[in-house]
Amino acid sequence: MIEKILTFIVGHPLPTGELAHKRLDKIRALAAFSPDALSSVAYASQEIYLGLVVAGSAGLRFAFPIAASVVLLLVIVAFSYFQTIQGYPSGGGSYKVAYENLGRLPGQVAGAALMIAYLLTAAVSLTAGVEALVSAFPGLWQYRVLLALVLLLLILLINLRGVQESGTIMAVPVYLFIFVFGGLIFLGLGRETLGVVSEPAPIVPAVAPITIFLLLHTFSTGCTALTGVEAISNGVPSFHPPEAKNAGITLVAMALIMGFLFAGSVGLIQSFQVIAGEQETILSALARKLVGNGAIYYLIQISTLLVLAVAANTSFVGFPRLAYILAQDKFLPHQLTILGDRLVYTNGMLLLAGCTAVLIVVFRGETHALIPLFASGALLTYTLSQLGMVIHWTRDGGKGWLLKGAINGLGALVTGAALLVVGASNFLHGAWLVFLLIPGFVIVFRMIHDHYQVVASQLTLRGLPPSLKPYPGLRLVLPISGVHRGVVDAVNLARTMSNRIVALYIEMEPGTAEKVKIKWEEWFPDIPLVIEPSPYRSLVGPLLAFLDRYDEECNDTTLAGVVLPEFVPAQNWQRFLHNQQAELLKQALLYRRRQHGFQRVIIDVPYHLKR
Amino acid sequence: MIEKILTFIVGHPLPTGELAHKRLDKIRALAAFSPDALSSVAYASQEIYLGLVVAGSAGLRFAFPIAASVVLLLVIVAFSYFQTIQGYPSGGGSYKVAYENLGRLPGQVAGAALMIAYLLTAAVSLTAGVEALVSAFPGLWQYRVLLALVLLLLILLINLRGVQESGTIMAVPVYLFIFVFGGLIFLGLGRETLGVVSEPAPIVPAVAPITIFLLLHTFSTGCTALTGVEAISNGVPSFHPPEAKNAGITLVAMALIMGFLFAGSVGLIQSFQVIAGEQETILSALARKLVGNGAIYYLIQISTLLVLAVAANTSFVGFPRLAYILAQDKFLPHQLTILGDRLVYTNGMLLLAGCTAVLIVVFRGETHALIPLFASGALLTYTLSQLGMVIHWTRDGGKGWLLKGAINGLGALVTGAALLVVGASNFLHGAWLVFLLIPGFVIVFRMIHDHYQVVASQLTLRGLPPSLKPYPGLRLVLPISGVHRGVVDAVNLARTMSNRIVALYIEMEPGTAEKVKIKWEEWFPDIPLVIEPSPYRSLVGPLLAFLDRYDEECNDTTLAGVVLPEFVPAQNWQRFLHNQQAELLKQALLYRRRQHGFQRVIIDVPYHLKR
Repeated sequence: MIEKILTFIVGHPLPTGELAHKRLDKIRALAAFSPDALSSVAYASQEIYLGLVVAGSAGLRFAFPIAASVVLLLVIVAFSYFQTIQGYPSGGGSYKVAYENLGRLPGQVAGAALMIAYLLTAAVSLTAGVEALVSAFPGLWQYRVLLALVLLLLILLINLRGVQESGTIMAVPVYLFIFVFGGLIFLGLGRETLGVVSEPAPIVPAVAPITIFLLLHTFSTGCTALTGVEAISNGVPSFHPPEAKNAGITLVAMALIMGFLFAGSVGLIQSFQVIAGEQETILSALARKLVGNGAIYYLIQISTLLVLAVAANTSFVGFPRLAYILAQDKFLPHQLTILGDRLVYTNGMLLLAGCTAVLIVVFRGETHALIPLFASGALLTYTLSQLGMVIHWTRDGGKGWLLKGAINGLGALVTGAALLVVGASNFLHGAWLVFLLIPGFVIVFRMIHDHYQVVASQLTLRGLPPSLKPYPGLRLVLPISGVHRGVVDAVNLARTMSNRIVALYIEMEPGTAEKVKIKWEEWFPDIPLVIEPSPYRSLVGPLLAFLDRYDEECNDTTLAGVVLPEFVPAQNWQRFLHNQQAELLKQALLYRRRQHGFQRVIIDVPYHLKR
Repeated sequence: MIEKILTFIVGHPLPTGELAHKRLDKIRALAAFSPDALSSVAYASQEIYLGLVVAGSAGLRFAFPIAASVVLLLVIVAFSYFQTIQGYPSGGGSYKVAYENLGRLPGQVAGAALMIAYLLTAAVSLTAGVEALVSAFPGLWQYRVLLALVLLLLILLINLRGVQESGTIMAVPVYLFIFVFGGLIFLGLGRETLGVVSEPAPIVPAVAPITIFLLLHTFSTGCTALTGVEAISNGVPSFHPPEAKNAGITLVAMALIMGFLFAGSVGLIQSFQVIAGEQETILSALARKLVGNGAIYYLIQISTLLVLAVAANTSFVGFPRLAYILAQDKFLPHQLTILGDRLVYTNGMLLLAGCTAVLIVVFRGETHALIPLFASGALLTYTLSQLGMVIHWTRDGGKGWLLKGAINGLGALVTGAALLVVGASNFLHGAWLVFLLIPGFVIVFRMIHDHYQVVASQLTLRGLPPSLKPYPGLRLVLPISGVHRGVVDAVNLARTMSNRIVALYIEMEPGTAEKVKIKWEEWFPDIPLVIEPSPYRSLVGPLLAFLDRYDEECNDTTLAGVVLPEFVPAQNWQRFLHNQQAELLKQALLYRRRQHGFQRVIIDVPYHLKR
């Protein structure tokens, strides 16, 4: 029943053979890898506005200069990743680059930072998307958290189905966004040039002075515009050959579009002196100013929401794949390596969705509150990955290694500096969490890794004698709840296996043992029945105590086993009408460790009722 | 860990031997059995007020006449139960009386009605108690549901501990309530006699005309004052000998106190023309009028809350005992007969608390909304129980049987009439639910009873040949996840048991089988290994399919078994790092029914890791 509902939602299982490697042309690849980067324009411009508006109209005059420095940073980072594409044509995720070149600990740190960045990409994209929506429909303001969670659930379900054609479908919102937003900026630039007179802008009062700290803080949160730039370098094998070249061209195109959209929108916001209300995003206010309140405005907001939703979707591609790689390297539970029914890493997706939901709820759906965490995580992975590339080129020593190394070195330097700025200026606003989470993740990685190694060393057959002999014999204990049809099969089986059998009745209700004993001796006179009292009316305790005592009394090398007669109701609902004692007992027996000798064997003899 | 927390909350397990039958003197017995009855004054007076206030000041003039008729009914019902005490000195619950005298179906109906009455006693007492509290502290009004649930949880925890001395502790609130409320009424009567002039009462405008229907409706909800009268008749064996006589005296005392409190308070409300606001109970308004807003007022409200809480507590005594009796008669799951660690019927208490919480939440903590349901349930049990007593006396035919029968007949007649009034006048206000729930309960009772009978008939040993032979032999399948130390014990055990063993590897990841096969043949060349592909990457499906196919191929009478090697991590947390596949597999094997031949035996061979 539950299975049917799940199948309806998620779809029928797919055979492993259908797992195909699909290649993308540049148009589709741009759509597949850029939504995260492009959509970051939405929240990065918002952050710059929010960072400066406290300093009033005077503060807002720094918007464009700050955006320009972010774009400069973007150019450097894009160059760096262009290098990564050439150096790792098989796809160089930050984790891989850091692990291979810098070593285990930096690799683990990069892996942890990348996991956090993926989580926050999903969370921030969803909350920013909802904010774009509620800017257009202010009545929905109070339902922001709920809306973000519904959107998350929707994206999760789509990904659990594992839609193979997602590439084409996802392309629509991306190009729609580029088209309408690009159009908006051209429109704005046109008006600017023509000197169209708009109403005089209101003077915004300052509540804080313009300080270096304020500017640095604003710059560092504006750096979230950079997030997503690395996506293409992870996916080089998805391009048509020559993969590296095509990927490089796509990266350049993406960086150009991104830089234009970001610098353009922040520039226009400053130049038109756009001000947003508390429940509106600055991009929404800009759009309203330029195109009014008509259909085009709603199209802009909807396309912003959609591209952000697609950006959240990229986490559902990247995070499970990263979790798979970390689990392959035995840093995460190996359940994350299992391909689900629909050929996707179901467990990774559920983990991502669960953590993202927690982030959205804890941060009350506020993008602004999530940003410091996001910026720190993303910049940390960038820095480590670029540092790794420097080592890579140095080791490589091929043609032009010095220039290549220098470019990545510059990338590492500027992202590292930006990371320091973020960490220092946002420490109390949430960046501290990253400095707590990353060591935590690394410790968990190591614990898991150690555990798997310890298990492997205990499971190895090396050193065992090549010829193994059967056991000397089997000694059986047969717990019974009464003398009825359900125990007959178990008795017969026990007789087949061994001639050392003891039946055991735990007397939970005083006075019941007498009748059981008489009936037992009538039916199975050859098997001795032991009666154990249970003053506390529990089954498991006295049974385990008896087994331990009996083993000690026998004091032999014989293997000990417990034969459990278990009757199984015909219908599922009928299970509620019977004690689940057998289940409890099996668990207790399985986990009961014996100090010496072999573990006890548990033999479950089901007796199926017919009605 | 969880166990320790539970032990801390609930207390250490108690041995069965401590289960003692305690006797109560009349003072303690009154406290033990009367809180439900006495406290019903609180909500019954409220119902009369609410029923009449819609008809304005003119309507409120009917308050005392209606209360007087309820007291008349109370006298008749008390007489009836006085008879029940004499007829069933061993304790005559309504279920027992109806079942024994009227037959199975009326017994089941009485049992269902009684369960509902117990649930509603708990729910109504809690909500009415909270209403008394928020009358004194209006700021708590918005937390009513939460407060009722917290109170419920508290009472549940106390009962799960199974405090043996509850009798003495519970006596304090009961006598406090009698004392302060009796005092209040005497004070009111005194003022009334002296003709103390109070401020002129406001005229309440009527929003509905005074109709026969309105008066009947008010009378029927006022009948909730009767609830709890039967409690003493259930507990006759708890009295000191002569039990029946002492119980009878206590019943008379209780009815007198109750009648005095009820008639007195309603009379004073009418005479002083007390009016209550929307967030205040009428008893609170009466108390405020008589004693002002000082400490005594708060004492009255707190004592009302406490006596209502103790009344809710009586459900925690009665409901689990009723559930036990119904489960003994195989009408409810037999888990309800199990004495918990603290010698109380834990499952029954949890069931009661769960259902009560649902009632409180669904009815938004409003006593007024719960009352029709409560009145119908209680009056139905009264009617059936009195009818049963009529039959009892007729069959008995002893001295004075005619008079005794007539008294109970009168009781049945008036409670039956009141039931009709409740059903008719409150049908749309919730009484319909009772007419839906009771047939539902009866159907469930019968399904459960049938199931247990069917199971018993399938488990009987009657008709089996007296001498049972061992099985012809055992054929084993050994599923492996790889060739490692964890399977060695399982192989050895299998060799000890049988010489027909097949190992099975389900290839979930294509390409892994080859290596496994080579290693297997190196270590265990005498046991054939079968490789089964799993195109959908599932373990359970292909394994069950293989077992079925293999059984068919063999087509013999040999018993089939599955030997499961299972390695057990050293620490609990490590379980999360391993697939729970073995668990899933065992469940699937246990519930897989074979069409003919014996069920498959499941042999679990644990291999405990040391670190």
